[in-house]
Amino acid sequence: MGGDHGPSVTLPACAAFLAAHPQAHLLLVGRAQALASLPAGIDARRCTIVPAAEVVEMDDPVEVALRRKKDSSMRVAIAQVKDGAADVAVSAGNTGALMAIARYVLKTLDGIDRPAIATQLPNATGGATTVLDLGANVDCTAEHLLQFAVMGSALVAAGGRENPTVGLLNIGEEVIKGNDVIKQAGQLLRSAAQRGDLNFHGNVEGNDIFKGTTDIVVCDGFVGNVALKASEGLASMIGTFLREEFARGPLSRLAALLAWPVLMRFKRRVDHRRYNGAALLGLRGLVFKSHGSADAFAFEQALRRAYDAAEARLLERVQRRIARAAPLMGPPGDATASSAGPSVST
Amino acid sequence: MGGDHGPSVTLPACAAFLAAHPQAHLLLVGRAQALASLPAGIDARRCTIVPAAEVVEMDDPVEVALRRKKDSSMRVAIAQVKDGAADVAVSAGNTGALMAIARYVLKTLDGIDRPAIATQLPNATGGATTVLDLGANVDCTAEHLLQFAVMGSALVAAGGRENPTVGLLNIGEEVIKGNDVIKQAGQLLRSAAQRGDLNFHGNVEGNDIFKGTTDIVVCDGFVGNVALKASEGLASMIGTFLREEFARGPLSRLAALLAWPVLMRFKRRVDHRRYNGAALLGLRGLVFKSHGSADAFAFEQALRRAYDAAEARLLERVQRRIARAAPLMGPPGDATASSAGPSVST
Repeated sequence: MGGDHGPSVTLPACAAFLAAHPQAHLLLVGRAQALASLPAGIDARRCTIVPAAEVVEMDDPVEVALRRKKDSSMRVAIAQVKDGAADVAVSAGNTGALMAIARYVLKTLDGIDRPAIATQLPNATGGATTVLDLGANVDCTAEHLLQFAVMGSALVAAGGRENPTVGLLNIGEEVIKGNDVIKQAGQLLRSAAQRGDLNFHGNVEGNDIFKGTTDIVVCDGFVGNVALKASEGLASMIGTFLREEFARGPLSRLAALLAWPVLMRFKRRVDHRRYNGAALLGLRGLVFKSHGSADAFAFEQALRRAYDAAEARLLERVQRRIARAAPLMGPPGDATASSAGPSVST
Repeated sequence: MGGDHGPSVTLPACAAFLAAHPQAHLLLVGRAQALASLPAGIDARRCTIVPAAEVVEMDDPVEVALRRKKDSSMRVAIAQVKDGAADVAVSAGNTGALMAIARYVLKTLDGIDRPAIATQLPNATGGATTVLDLGANVDCTAEHLLQFAVMGSALVAAGGRENPTVGLLNIGEEVIKGNDVIKQAGQLLRSAAQRGDLNFHGNVEGNDIFKGTTDIVVCDGFVGNVALKASEGLASMIGTFLREEFARGPLSRLAALLAWPVLMRFKRRVDHRRYNGAALLGLRGLVFKSHGSADAFAFEQALRRAYDAAEARLLERVQRRIARAAPLMGPPGDATASSAGPSVST
């Protein structure tokens, strides 16, 4: 139901996702009438409609979403994960509400103080850089940054890249740079690396996100959110300028026509929709967040990413890594926390 | 002497700058032998060579620059400003060293705890957004952010835009967003706006920098530095991808040829060199910082920006505004601090 477009985007995305994943099963959570007539591409035998009477609006305060809308599609979807009916929940709704509800319903893993939001950004190597946190936590301690590094490593390893490198976002590469929290975090990350819990590269700077210097970049949610949104703003401005210049007069439009295949290839390479689908990490269940403005293609990517994470048993990977790094994080966590192991159906 | 290229870039930039500014006079500070033979374009009557035996290297620690290289070109150039021989100093050297030396030699203005670095970034309106701080201050209080807002307003007003709008960089537009420092800063900025000291727009997000929502965006140096460098990294990646796609095979190269005028117009619009020249604000004298990797065109922009700021009496504007806002900043500052008023020669 969520996002800027609701079922008009999410249902076509579900159809495409099911076509590409013959083993997958979807629970469609929302208002019965919105889900009454599924698009032709959706095989009704591979979907279960789970009714929810309310919808969390994009501008609902967290308190409203959490306390007043107890039968929201968001909450019911997350409850499916808690109950073991689903392996992972995906939403394009209000991020703050999603995090609060997920935290309330699922609870955090042992050893995790605060869940984090992790997304991928394209980098110059042709791969992607995983960045976390992206706004869930505005004030972080060094221990939180270590937790993010450990959870991010589990996420990237679940994606098939074993022993991924971690960079600590800073304003210089030297160990002495940054504020006290960053310097302490650097020490913790170096200790974790010495113990074999992490593959810590060292400090990285803002440009390293897009250079692809490390697989993972760790930062507090304030910095991560600003860096992400500044990048979105810049990409949008550059795209606008490029379109405007190719539309400036008949000769430019002719040039655009001739350069069309090149421009399309370029567009595909920088298409942020391919990277849609952020992981909420540190909870006792898997939840993925799609961009609110996602179109069907973008939302399908979030579904794929969520499915792949469940299939790669991301939750167990996070738990295992957090348990291993627990001695660095204060009181040891309980690595055997109860949580239904994800199956390949979603 | 500074920057990645030294006099091979700065001297040609000086020649172009002098040609465009018939009233300007330059003090060229550096090793006598590097300045012995000036390029043909430089009129020796409009330059004074000021010898300095040492050079601060790009990787010199601040302590070395400050304590061991007392006859560095950087220090001697700043001393010219202190002595009233120059109205403004421009350097492409090591930022940390420049800030430390400027602060040591010039001292901060009354009412200013910490100088800040302010730069301009292009925005989608076709204008530029002034962002500060960009790395001088990694931990800021609400009062520091207010000081940045006031100094940034003076800078933009000196550039001809009276009553510029100020945005506080945050992770959401709502007043309740952000950490404690940001929320307190929001209150201070609103108070300053009510008193008529500032034109405060409210919170802005990372994408607003490039949208051009406000003339000025205020943030702590850690966040500003990361946002700036992430943007540089993204712009560089996008440029590389665009070049690669236009070089992929003979047809693409033909398309590039046909689209050449369009691509050049686009390139000019996003050319970051046009925005080179960051102001060090809050000192008892004017200092501008060029990007270390600047070429002659970029360094010339930094010279122009510095010259225009001196001509617009930026220092007096900052002092006046800081004095006016002093009641919000704790103990009142001394607005009559001694500092030679800049003349139009530089």
